[in-house]
Amino acid sequence: MRLTRVFIMLCLLSSLGLAEEGMFPMNELKRLDLRQAGFELSAEAIFNPDSVSLTTAIINIGGCTGSFISPQGLILTNHHCAFSAIQRASSAEHDYLREGFYAASHEKEFPARGFTVRITDSYVDVSQEILAAVAAAGDFSTRAKAKEKRGKELIAAAEKENPGKRVELSEMFPGKSYMLFIYTYLTDVRLVYAPPFGIGNFGGEEDNWVWPRHTGDFALMRAYVAPDGKPAEYAPGNVPYSPRVYLPIASRGAREGDLAFILGYPGRTYRHTSSHYLEYESRLRMPWIVEWYGHQIKTMEEMSRKDRTVALKLSSPIKGLANTWKNYQGKLLGIDRLDLVERKRLEEARLAEFITADSVRQSRYGIVLPEIDAYYKEMSSRFESDKLMDALLRSSSLLSTAYTLYQSSTEMAKPDLERDSPYMERNLTRTRERLPLALADFYLPRERLFLEEIIEKIQALPAREQPAAIARLPKGKKLGKFLDEAFAGSKLMESAWAMQLFGKPAGELIGTGDPFLKLAAGLHPDLERQREFRRASGARLEKLMADYVEIKQAAAGRDFIPDANSTLRLTYGHIRGYAPRDAVWYAPFTTLNGILEKNRGEEPYNAPRALLEAGASSGASPYVNPDLGAVPVNLLYDMDTTGGNSGSPVLNQRGELIGLNFDRAFEATINDYAWSSSYSRSIGVDVRYILWILAEVSGAKGLLNELGVE
Amino acid sequence: MRLTRVFIMLCLLSSLGLAEEGMFPMNELKRLDLRQAGFELSAEAIFNPDSVSLTTAIINIGGCTGSFISPQGLILTNHHCAFSAIQRASSAEHDYLREGFYAASHEKEFPARGFTVRITDSYVDVSQEILAAVAAAGDFSTRAKAKEKRGKELIAAAEKENPGKRVELSEMFPGKSYMLFIYTYLTDVRLVYAPPFGIGNFGGEEDNWVWPRHTGDFALMRAYVAPDGKPAEYAPGNVPYSPRVYLPIASRGAREGDLAFILGYPGRTYRHTSSHYLEYESRLRMPWIVEWYGHQIKTMEEMSRKDRTVALKLSSPIKGLANTWKNYQGKLLGIDRLDLVERKRLEEARLAEFITADSVRQSRYGIVLPEIDAYYKEMSSRFESDKLMDALLRSSSLLSTAYTLYQSSTEMAKPDLERDSPYMERNLTRTRERLPLALADFYLPRERLFLEEIIEKIQALPAREQPAAIARLPKGKKLGKFLDEAFAGSKLMESAWAMQLFGKPAGELIGTGDPFLKLAAGLHPDLERQREFRRASGARLEKLMADYVEIKQAAAGRDFIPDANSTLRLTYGHIRGYAPRDAVWYAPFTTLNGILEKNRGEEPYNAPRALLEAGASSGASPYVNPDLGAVPVNLLYDMDTTGGNSGSPVLNQRGELIGLNFDRAFEATINDYAWSSSYSRSIGVDVRYILWILAEVSGAKGLLNELGVE
Repeated sequence: MRLTRVFIMLCLLSSLGLAEEGMFPMNELKRLDLRQAGFELSAEAIFNPDSVSLTTAIINIGGCTGSFISPQGLILTNHHCAFSAIQRASSAEHDYLREGFYAASHEKEFPARGFTVRITDSYVDVSQEILAAVAAAGDFSTRAKAKEKRGKELIAAAEKENPGKRVELSEMFPGKSYMLFIYTYLTDVRLVYAPPFGIGNFGGEEDNWVWPRHTGDFALMRAYVAPDGKPAEYAPGNVPYSPRVYLPIASRGAREGDLAFILGYPGRTYRHTSSHYLEYESRLRMPWIVEWYGHQIKTMEEMSRKDRTVALKLSSPIKGLANTWKNYQGKLLGIDRLDLVERKRLEEARLAEFITADSVRQSRYGIVLPEIDAYYKEMSSRFESDKLMDALLRSSSLLSTAYTLYQSSTEMAKPDLERDSPYMERNLTRTRERLPLALADFYLPRERLFLEEIIEKIQALPAREQPAAIARLPKGKKLGKFLDEAFAGSKLMESAWAMQLFGKPAGELIGTGDPFLKLAAGLHPDLERQREFRRASGARLEKLMADYVEIKQAAAGRDFIPDANSTLRLTYGHIRGYAPRDAVWYAPFTTLNGILEKNRGEEPYNAPRALLEAGASSGASPYVNPDLGAVPVNLLYDMDTTGGNSGSPVLNQRGELIGLNFDRAFEATINDYAWSSSYSRSIGVDVRYILWILAEVSGAKGLLNELGVE
Repeated sequence: MRLTRVFIMLCLLSSLGLAEEGMFPMNELKRLDLRQAGFELSAEAIFNPDSVSLTTAIINIGGCTGSFISPQGLILTNHHCAFSAIQRASSAEHDYLREGFYAASHEKEFPARGFTVRITDSYVDVSQEILAAVAAAGDFSTRAKAKEKRGKELIAAAEKENPGKRVELSEMFPGKSYMLFIYTYLTDVRLVYAPPFGIGNFGGEEDNWVWPRHTGDFALMRAYVAPDGKPAEYAPGNVPYSPRVYLPIASRGAREGDLAFILGYPGRTYRHTSSHYLEYESRLRMPWIVEWYGHQIKTMEEMSRKDRTVALKLSSPIKGLANTWKNYQGKLLGIDRLDLVERKRLEEARLAEFITADSVRQSRYGIVLPEIDAYYKEMSSRFESDKLMDALLRSSSLLSTAYTLYQSSTEMAKPDLERDSPYMERNLTRTRERLPLALADFYLPRERLFLEEIIEKIQALPAREQPAAIARLPKGKKLGKFLDEAFAGSKLMESAWAMQLFGKPAGELIGTGDPFLKLAAGLHPDLERQREFRRASGARLEKLMADYVEIKQAAAGRDFIPDANSTLRLTYGHIRGYAPRDAVWYAPFTTLNGILEKNRGEEPYNAPRALLEAGASSGASPYVNPDLGAVPVNLLYDMDTTGGNSGSPVLNQRGELIGLNFDRAFEATINDYAWSSSYSRSIGVDVRYILWILAEVSGAKGLLNELGVE
């Protein structure tokens, strides 16, 4: 095996062009020669902090990206991003998830509780302020607190200066650079259109992270504001938001080889991390998650089989876990196949040589790599118990709600700037209003089972690693009895009751006698200790990573682009296929023909009859791709994306919409650690498919009119 | 589902170019404009019944095709065709199957028992003679007998005219046209070279019928003759055969788009059959085989797991069943996906209209389609019991040997021309010498189990469908005991004992008291009745199919090319990839890189170390494909092949060897029923890979010298 590996590395990897860069923050656009790359837009037309620009139309919505595509605040994002809204609008009587949803008039649009729209207004570099505060502090725990405090002060000041806006602090390079982003938040968001499940989720988990793909993963929502134009909570009298900019539609679509770019909010990448991190991830954390999620998915799928109501309730949690589950498997395969840990080690060996070659560098950075190693050794030794404590709260919405309530009580007793962020005055409403959302998917048999399993796993840890509150719970069959009684005795699933407890004194919470509130109170000291440890170790790692990136940049003789961190980024490339393996070529467009090939009349390949009928006469459609002689469905491009880029618009050289990003090819799950021009490909819905579905399958003429498409 | 199907048929199938033709018999070469197609060879250079030509180098060997490639009778064929020879040469001590085999000198070549080489000398059309004999006869049973008798007479006469040759009668169109082929048979065949299992069977069953492929499925054998140059049985003093023609090697290989052709002995195709046949196959016969073979494979794989000796013994039977098992699954998928039964029905509906449109046609052919329907209805009603009776003899080598012995006794009591063909004087030696080959794979636990299972299935049939000899066997646990005693009490596994019983009178056989001989005698009346029925129903179908093809040709206004029937055929086309599904393109060459991608150091992807090492420095090899920058492994072409074409040489426009045919792509398993230019692709070993393996992996310089390659 070794020999094969080395051979592959020698023969193939050298030519793969693994790169670290491609998600450019707005302040880096000036680095790029856009004209040379083929853009017909200037950097200022794309982003202008002093005026409106294309980015004004790009929003963050439900952890995804979205974009305004009409003067009436119509938002285009993914079906999977709007999924929980569609799920919650659905019932066994009105199964919008299955049948699709189309509000032919504004009144029929469905409020998407919990969805907010975030628009990036501008940003300020505050690296100096943050680093100065940190530099003055002592040990890591103090440093962490000093940084948090300074950040909160900066945010408070900026929000005061920008009334009605929200300000957020983003770490660009850990321990090195920080930005304040000024955002507009709109909180009245409504569902306008969702295709039938057999279109929006065609291929399901089987095709997730897979090319060739045939998923109509799009949905339309709409942002509303108060009649005076200001952001406001949902109210029937609100009016559609008028965005300052919305994206034009390129209804002729794109062709193979065309330049394209994406604006969006990619979540997290880890390209500037070390071999130790990758090893920790690939040997410990991801395999653990793959196993635990796999078990949960299988269990919930069995529970769903009997009852459509249960299936509707569990569909969103299953989808969420399954996505990560398959993604991690792709990553683990990729890390193994590319021998990424070993490659990072070789890189670090060269870096170590660079450091020792100069005595000044040696005294300044000599300790960095050994210290990173020591850090991950410690994390590895704590891994199992840390992971179980995280899983404990996640396994039960009652326990996590109870814990949020108990935390609200202890945190809200502190001065505002010292509170944990969700309990600061500016965030209180949101935190409180998330309580019923967390409880909305409550399904007793699932919670009961997973909670018991996690508690048993914790009880199997060495005694000193068990939180006292778990150690003192009964074991075995008696634990089962205890949990039966706890669920029977709790009122927390009544979300109104839970909400009115928010922020009440701890004594009052315990006084309710609710078994989950009592358990939460018991867990609090241990979880607080864990949080304290994480804060300090986070500061320790931050310092190490700042030095690590600094010396790596010095060795490389250039500055790096920061890893993705949910801030606005641009990536560009071309509509382009790839060779996933010897003698196989994937072309960059799929067509309706592929839907017919895959369709078997049952999940996950269950295209609705209306699509099949429309497909039969689609040959003369204006949306036919002339190169293929068929209506295109999905498209593929060599851009640099990650989670969070879901729902990002794919734009042509003039900034017109040609597609809607929603996934990556399986080989590109490795993007988060390394990007390659050979196989890092992302997947979008072709804009022509969106228009064809609206016109020919859903008969949504009103929406086409709103989009200015004939 | 219906709608999808119809849509697919309308949109796709019309453009697929499904064809019925492509395997041209030698007497049809004149139909082809070879120059126009790009050949630099005339039809006469390829086949000349009066002189030597390229086909003189093409042989039939072990059910496969092979070709002479040196003046010393060196034969190139597939590893899977030579498999049983390699298997039998192997033992736990000398595991040539695993390690590969290379005889550096003639003395070290290993006798391949049971292998014969058949060379096509010439042919004679005897349709008139056969049809005249049949026309004079009465009912179907008499017709069948008359045809058999006339055929045997013609063969006897021709063999008398051609001393030392064997003559065989081939039915070209059932009930319509017949050819006598005059063959030379060489019976001393030896194994010269086999690559290691990890090359010759790389990808194993997982990759079987799959493109992209990376299998070095080739082996070298050598034909020997008596010192006087005449065919002779194995003898140490025999000398290498000097073929009149051998194929030149194109060591530069081929490029994408090049013209190529194949000469070989394709086994059976069924393109001129009716919807009724296809329905019988796809609803009854193939699903039955898939289930029964699947069960046998699984069972034998479990038996093999414990013991390498057992594994070696069972490897050949498993490989044989697995090949058909996967092939039938591909066919069933293809028949379903293309809705072939329905398409044939539509075709027949049009044919029926053509027939009824003319009163002469109606009176002559009006009955044909209804009669074919009636025929398959009857076959379907007998299906289960017929199938089980066939499986009964196949399930046990002892029982089948016993039955052959009992048949030899009854048949050899008849005049020669009235005997069943294997027991005619001209075939006696071969039939007798196959006995030890059948017994060579005897493995008691397997035989005991499968025989019991089949007997139990027969015992579960309605009483009137059970042969008396099975009906009177004990049932349940007592059957188990009976079988234990039968296996313990039989001497038939001693092949010398079995051979000396060949042709002995029936009384003497029964007098041995051997339980399997007794069972065979008991089965004989019922099996003879079955044979008689099949002979008559075969004649009935033959008449129907003759009329069916006749009227179809009239409707089409052209003559058809006969279905494959193990006679020499030519097919030509180009080195060409294909699109197996939407947005996927398969290129027509694989390379060493693909072996490294697939290799995982264990079966079925376990390339030997020597290959990996040689691969690491293969970049400068003279065998690199300049278009790909790597040594090619397999190649793909749009020619028309089927089983029996295994081992066929792939030749360029000058008739030089560029590859070795060994398989088809999964989509092309449907070839046997319908051929399509869109996806019917066959797979060969690139000649450069063969040369590279011989030179760089096996160090077989002697063979390269013999091939005239530097």
